[in-house]
Amino acid sequence: MKAINKIVFIGAGNVATHLATNLKDKRFDIVQVYSRKKKSADFLAKKVDAESICNLNAVSEEADLYIIAVPDDALPEIAGKLKLENKLIVHTSGFHEMDILKSISARTGVFYPLQTFSKNRKINLSDVPFCIESKNINDIALLKSVAQTLSSDIRLMNSGKRRMVHLAAVFACNFANHMYFAANEILEQSNISFDILKPLIIETAAKIIKQTPEKAQTGPAYRGDVSVMKQHLKILKDKDIIELYKLMSDHIYKTHHSK
Amino acid sequence: MKAINKIVFIGAGNVATHLATNLKDKRFDIVQVYSRKKKSADFLAKKVDAESICNLNAVSEEADLYIIAVPDDALPEIAGKLKLENKLIVHTSGFHEMDILKSISARTGVFYPLQTFSKNRKINLSDVPFCIESKNINDIALLKSVAQTLSSDIRLMNSGKRRMVHLAAVFACNFANHMYFAANEILEQSNISFDILKPLIIETAAKIIKQTPEKAQTGPAYRGDVSVMKQHLKILKDKDIIELYKLMSDHIYKTHHSK
Repeated sequence: MKAINKIVFIGAGNVATHLATNLKDKRFDIVQVYSRKKKSADFLAKKVDAESICNLNAVSEEADLYIIAVPDDALPEIAGKLKLENKLIVHTSGFHEMDILKSISARTGVFYPLQTFSKNRKINLSDVPFCIESKNINDIALLKSVAQTLSSDIRLMNSGKRRMVHLAAVFACNFANHMYFAANEILEQSNISFDILKPLIIETAAKIIKQTPEKAQTGPAYRGDVSVMKQHLKILKDKDIIELYKLMSDHIYKTHHSK
Repeated sequence: MKAINKIVFIGAGNVATHLATNLKDKRFDIVQVYSRKKKSADFLAKKVDAESICNLNAVSEEADLYIIAVPDDALPEIAGKLKLENKLIVHTSGFHEMDILKSISARTGVFYPLQTFSKNRKINLSDVPFCIESKNINDIALLKSVAQTLSSDIRLMNSGKRRMVHLAAVFACNFANHMYFAANEILEQSNISFDILKPLIIETAAKIIKQTPEKAQTGPAYRGDVSVMKQHLKILKDKDIIELYKLMSDHIYKTHHSK
């Protein structure tokens, strides 16, 4: 079984950028970066010393691993256009099944880093869970060997479980962040800087390292303090935020008092 | 103006415990701890080398500062029962107005640490914002001098603004934590340990130190990926969590695409 050295990236967004730059640091040879947009392909290709391509027909057949890191809604189209015979090809999506790649090659897999990646923000990948999947035991070993250069948390996981993890991540990341967004809206109404909430946000997240979210809960909804909740609803102005407040508070109260 | 040294705590819960033990460390003399429940009063009083009392009539008249740290719904009753003439008395509530204390003394104030406090969890108070209020300039100076021994972030703030901060904190802390709770429910359905989400939760919180929550947002609702959202709604089982998912996703999409 030949070790992986040459890697092609299909995609040049946040996930591709973080993976490609980190793999380059670990001395993998990033041979090509593909993006529909020339500027994006050029930008990442330059960073990792790779060839920049904008045409899927130009994808090299000489690599050991092909990593498709594109938005979930772009993956089906890309998968329909690629043909790579017996090459090992993976996607990085939490959502899509491995089999979305089956028309491309006989050797498919998944390489999903469970993290939120943004532009201009360096992330230490060393504790990021990598969810790995493949039908072939040799390919699992190959994918593990690549992931292990980046992180100490490698998990073999099938598509069904991975999809549940991705769904849970939407709550823990996107929806939690949306609560920060709503908090910011409320503060802006009163000309108060969002800075005041930062230590609270950090501590709220840090708490769940040691406690379950259930045990960590505090606040008026948890205590069932109806008088505080009524006043809060009076001073909220945005009708969508009022709706969120009600639903959240009802659900917090219900889940903590029904047991 | 006499500096503050002797402090009485009315309340022995999480906020009282964190404040009293930290103030004791800063060499303040905690003279009494009151709680309705003898066991709670005894427990905290022992920690800070104070007298334990369960009767409000036993509150000493010899202290320089009285700190009421009780749940919001218990504060009105406590305030109605205390009489301390010209003594400086404050509450630690984000929600209640300063004037809830006006029948107790002519010298009232607020001493609100903006943080989530739990049992058995030590918190570094040094960057916790303390919101201070008083009508008297000398009392403001006294409260600042106490707060400055604990934290470098002291803010003079009136009751109206403080209430908005408290409301924003409910979103940023309680509601964000509830999203961790929902994520945990989803993972439990598939027998996946909540551990897998911890690096994501920490990074999601850490992101907003440098970016606005608006800029930090990612995920299917933000991208408007209808096909992923439809699938997510299919695999969710709990009807309340489905409702939360819909409302959150609609609101995220709307707020990011209406500008």
